[in-house]
Amino acid sequence: MCSEFRPYYSVIFTSIQTDNTEGYNEMAQQMEEFAKEQEGFLGINSARDTVGITVSYWESLEAIKNWKQQSDHLIAQQKGRKEWYRWYNVRICKVEREYEFNLS
Amino acid sequence: MCSEFRPYYSVIFTSIQTDNTEGYNEMAQQMEEFAKEQEGFLGINSARDTVGITVSYWESLEAIKNWKQQSDHLIAQQKGRKEWYRWYNVRICKVEREYEFNLS
Repeated sequence: MCSEFRPYYSVIFTSIQTDNTEGYNEMAQQMEEFAKEQEGFLGINSARDTVGITVSYWESLEAIKNWKQQSDHLIAQQKGRKEWYRWYNVRICKVEREYEFNLS
Repeated sequence: MCSEFRPYYSVIFTSIQTDNTEGYNEMAQQMEEFAKEQEGFLGINSARDTVGITVSYWESLEAIKNWKQQSDHLIAQQKGRKEWYRWYNVRICKVEREYEFNLS
């Protein structure tokens, strides 16, 4: 934990898929590419078992808002609700503290 | 997004495992059981691909601190650093907004 830690933001996206996942992986990959090009993007991690978790990191709430409204992303969101997701939850969070372990 | 939304906290635990995962799943399951018994625990989600992501939700920073220091959990953390994790990152976040989609 660093004393000069500067808060940033995370978006926790948790989801359960439908049985129709056609086109999903391609779109997910494309969205990750697009997110990385956004201003204020800091990083992203994804994993899926029964539940899928994608956490993205952003410099500001404004960067998150801009990404939410980006045109390709809006199309992906719509397709997601129509075809791929049975359920999802989005949480916007402020990262207040952080620490890391590295095997030495 | 609800106008009466009451902030709570999330712990985003991201990890990369070593090649030695013996005993890991049992311990992970036990830790989840113990977490659920903690005061202030709200929920937990886990998924693993290349990276593992576990996000737990808590009523307060104090509840997170108590869980971090719980005795069985301390032993698990130590074993994790010694055997199971090549790398991990822990982020303590304040959940500021949330929305959900349910397929109707």
